[in-house]
Amino acid sequence: MNTDGTHSTGDGRDRRPRVVIVGAGFGGLHAARTLADYPVDVLILNRTNYHGFWPLLYQVATAGLEPESIAYPVRAIVRRHPNVDFRLTEVTGIDFQRRRVLTAGEAIPYDGLILAAGSTTNYFGNQDLEVHTFGMKDMDEAEALRNQALLRFEEAVGTADARRRRALMTFVIVGGGPTGVELAGAFAELFSHVLRRDYPSLDVADARVVVVEAGDTVLATFPPKLRDSAAKRLAKLGVEVRLHTAVDRVDGQQVVFRDGSRLEAGTVIWAAGVKAAELADHLGLPQARAGRVPVTPELHLPDRPEVFVIGDMAYLEGPDGKGYPMVAQVAMQQGVQAAKNLMASWSGTPMKPFSYFDKGNMATIGRRAAVFDAFGVQATGLIAWLGWLFIHLIYLVGFRNRMLVLLNWAYNYFTYDRGVRIISSTRNPHVAQAACAPGEERQSRVG
Amino acid sequence: MNTDGTHSTGDGRDRRPRVVIVGAGFGGLHAARTLADYPVDVLILNRTNYHGFWPLLYQVATAGLEPESIAYPVRAIVRRHPNVDFRLTEVTGIDFQRRRVLTAGEAIPYDGLILAAGSTTNYFGNQDLEVHTFGMKDMDEAEALRNQALLRFEEAVGTADARRRRALMTFVIVGGGPTGVELAGAFAELFSHVLRRDYPSLDVADARVVVVEAGDTVLATFPPKLRDSAAKRLAKLGVEVRLHTAVDRVDGQQVVFRDGSRLEAGTVIWAAGVKAAELADHLGLPQARAGRVPVTPELHLPDRPEVFVIGDMAYLEGPDGKGYPMVAQVAMQQGVQAAKNLMASWSGTPMKPFSYFDKGNMATIGRRAAVFDAFGVQATGLIAWLGWLFIHLIYLVGFRNRMLVLLNWAYNYFTYDRGVRIISSTRNPHVAQAACAPGEERQSRVG
Repeated sequence: MNTDGTHSTGDGRDRRPRVVIVGAGFGGLHAARTLADYPVDVLILNRTNYHGFWPLLYQVATAGLEPESIAYPVRAIVRRHPNVDFRLTEVTGIDFQRRRVLTAGEAIPYDGLILAAGSTTNYFGNQDLEVHTFGMKDMDEAEALRNQALLRFEEAVGTADARRRRALMTFVIVGGGPTGVELAGAFAELFSHVLRRDYPSLDVADARVVVVEAGDTVLATFPPKLRDSAAKRLAKLGVEVRLHTAVDRVDGQQVVFRDGSRLEAGTVIWAAGVKAAELADHLGLPQARAGRVPVTPELHLPDRPEVFVIGDMAYLEGPDGKGYPMVAQVAMQQGVQAAKNLMASWSGTPMKPFSYFDKGNMATIGRRAAVFDAFGVQATGLIAWLGWLFIHLIYLVGFRNRMLVLLNWAYNYFTYDRGVRIISSTRNPHVAQAACAPGEERQSRVG
Repeated sequence: MNTDGTHSTGDGRDRRPRVVIVGAGFGGLHAARTLADYPVDVLILNRTNYHGFWPLLYQVATAGLEPESIAYPVRAIVRRHPNVDFRLTEVTGIDFQRRRVLTAGEAIPYDGLILAAGSTTNYFGNQDLEVHTFGMKDMDEAEALRNQALLRFEEAVGTADARRRRALMTFVIVGGGPTGVELAGAFAELFSHVLRRDYPSLDVADARVVVVEAGDTVLATFPPKLRDSAAKRLAKLGVEVRLHTAVDRVDGQQVVFRDGSRLEAGTVIWAAGVKAAELADHLGLPQARAGRVPVTPELHLPDRPEVFVIGDMAYLEGPDGKGYPMVAQVAMQQGVQAAKNLMASWSGTPMKPFSYFDKGNMATIGRRAAVFDAFGVQATGLIAWLGWLFIHLIYLVGFRNRMLVLLNWAYNYFTYDRGVRIISSTRNPHVAQAACAPGEERQSRVG
C-alpha cells in the first residue's frame, strides 16, 4: 500500500484498498461496521442475503417466531455505509498467493481478507447422525424441525397403534448445552400449552421431550447454582434429562445408547457438537480441534498479516489455555479487533493482541424462567428471564425485527399460544412427501 | 338418517352423521362454521395445515409480508368448535357409491360431503408456460416469486453485459386482472423505493414491470371510471401496460407475443387464468369451463343431494347467465348455503337455491391508491385505499395475524421499506442452485 492510503494497480491508477469479508454473521458484520470508518472499500460475501440472529433460532424451530423475524437483509445494513458493498455468493476457497477469493463464479481480488464463515453442525463423521437427526444451525434446519414436529403430531392423530403413536410424539435432544436446554423448554411448552388444545384426541402425556447429555450436568459452562436451577426448571416442565448418557447410534426408528438401552423416537435433534464452517477444510491450512484455523494472538494467519480468521472458524487460546468458546460475543469482539489490526498494519502501527471481555452467559427455559450469569450478575427465574428478553431485543438488528419479535413474544406470553405453527411444505423436501398420507407408513427423514 | 338426527351403522349403534369438507379455504371454513351449530360431526381435510388468506398473497410475493402472517393454522379455528375436527391429507378422489373420500392413506367415510378444494393456475395445457413462468396461487409460489425477484437483482449486480442485466431486471406479468394489477403496483414500488437503495450500482430505470393483457382494459370487471383510474395510477408508478397483446410462447429467455414482437425478461408471472383444483378432474363427473363441476342451484351434484361442490370448483350460472366468478365472496356465501342445505335435507325441509349478494370489488395499486367498488360505493385514491386496508384487516383471520399485518403495513408505509426481502433458499429448489454464483450463467427456473 502507498503511504496515502491507496493501492497501486497494474494500470498505474491508484485505488482504495479492498477488504473482503467472508460471512455476514456476528463477526463479519462487526468487522464491516468497524471498517466503515476507514478509507477502504469493504465487500461482504455471504451465501444468504440475510444476517441470521441465531440466538433466537430455537424459537423458530418451536413455532414461536417467523423465520423472517430473525433474518435481517445484509443490504439493509450495508446501505448505511457508502464504502461497504455486498455480494451473494458461496466462497469455495482462497488463493492466498494471488490474493483472490474463489467462488463458483468469478474470483474476487482482495488486499485484506477477514474470514468469518462461522460454524456448522459436527456429526463427528457419523453418516447416520447426519441423515437421521435434525441440526439447529441455520434457518432451513430450524424450519425443517418446526415442520417435522407439527407433522409428527398430525401423523400421531391418524395412528392407531399406541406404541407407534408414542414414538411419533417422542423428541430426543442430544446435547445439554444452551441450545439443547432452550429447545427442550420451548418444545415442552409448545406441547403442553398449544398442542394439547390443538389435538384433543391425543394424550399429551405421550409427548415426551428427552435431553441426553454425555457429561454430568446440563449447561456445563454455567455456575453450579444456575445449573441446578435449570435442571429443576426442566423437570418441572416435564423434560426428562438423562446425564452420563452417550448416543451409540440413531437409525431413524430409535436411539441406541452406549449402555445398550434404546428409546423409540420419531424425532432426534443433534445439538451435541459444532465445528468450523466447511470452508475451513478447503483452505490448505493446518486445523485445530473442531476444524478451527489457528491464528496469532492478533487474529491473522501466522505468515499472512493481511488475512484474518475470526469467530467460530478461528482457533486461539485464551489466558486459561483453552480455545475461546464458539459464541457470538467472541466473534463480535474479534470482528472489531481484526478490522482494527488490519488498518493498523496498513498504517504502519503495531497490531494489538485479542483480549476477550466475557460478558457472560444466559439461557431461557420456557416462560418466565432463565438462568443469567452476565455483567457480574447471577440470577434465575423471572428476573433472569426479563434480563434475557431485554438483552436479546437490544442485540437484535433492525427496528422492524424488534417489533415483530416483541409482538410475537407478547402474543405467545398472554395467549399461551404459538401463532407460527405452519407446516411450510416445500421448504423441506422430506415434508412435502410426508404431508400426504396420515396413518400410513412412509418415507421421511426420521421413521 | 333417522328422525332423531343420528345415523344407523351396521353394528346397530347410532352415531351422529359425519360431514366431510374437502378444503380449508374461504368456502370450506364458512361451511364448517355453519355446521358447528348442528348436531353433526364435521371433518375438514386439507393438504396444508393452514388457511391461506390469498387476497394478500401478492404482498408475500413482493417482500411486504411474511408468509406466516397470512397463514392461519386450521386447528386454531377448529379447536373453538368441539364437533369440528381436522386431518392433514391430500384427497385423491371420491367413491360416491360407497360414500368414501379417498386419500393416499385411509379412505374416509362420509354421510354428507362438501367439496371446496378451490382452484389452481390454468396454463391451458401449455407445458412451456408451466415450466417458465411463476404462478400466484399458493404460499410456495408466492415465496418462490419473492426469492426469484430478489435473486434477479443480486445476479444483475454481478452482470457486466448491459442487455443481459436489463433482461434480469425485467418482470412481465401476464394478465391484467386484480392479481396482475396489484402485483405490478407492489413490484414497481419495491423496485423504486427499496431496491434503488439496496443496489446503488444498478440503474433502477432498467427495472421494468410490464403488464400484458389480451383484452382492451385492465381490471375488466370494474366500472370504466375505476379502470381508467387504475391505468393512470399504474402509468404513474412506471408500470408499462400492453393491451390487446396475447402471449404466444415463453422460453425462459424471452416472451414472444402473437404479433411476433419479443421481450427479453428474466421473470414471467402467469396471472392470466385459473381453473378448478385438480381434484375436479378425478371425480368422474362432467366438467364445465375451466374444469369446474356443474351443480344444481342448491349447490349439490344433480343426482347426489348429499354431495355439495362450492366456490372455485363449482360451476353455477347466476341470473345473468354467466358462471359465478371464482372469488372469495362467492365461495364464502356458497359455503354457508351448502351447509344449510345439507342440514335442511337431513331434517326433511326443502333446500334453498343459492343467491349471490355481490359486495363488490377492490384492488390496490401501490401506496395510498386503490380502486373500490363495493357496498354501493365507488372510490379511488386514498379513500379507496383506506377502505381496502380496513376490509382486508377485518376479513383476515386471527388477532395475531391482524397485528402482524398491521405492523408490517405501518412499517412499510412510514419507512418506504420492505422488511421481508429474505431469500429463503431451500423453499425453492431453483433458488438453492442459483444462489451460488452471481455473474455466471446457470440453470434456474427462468433464464
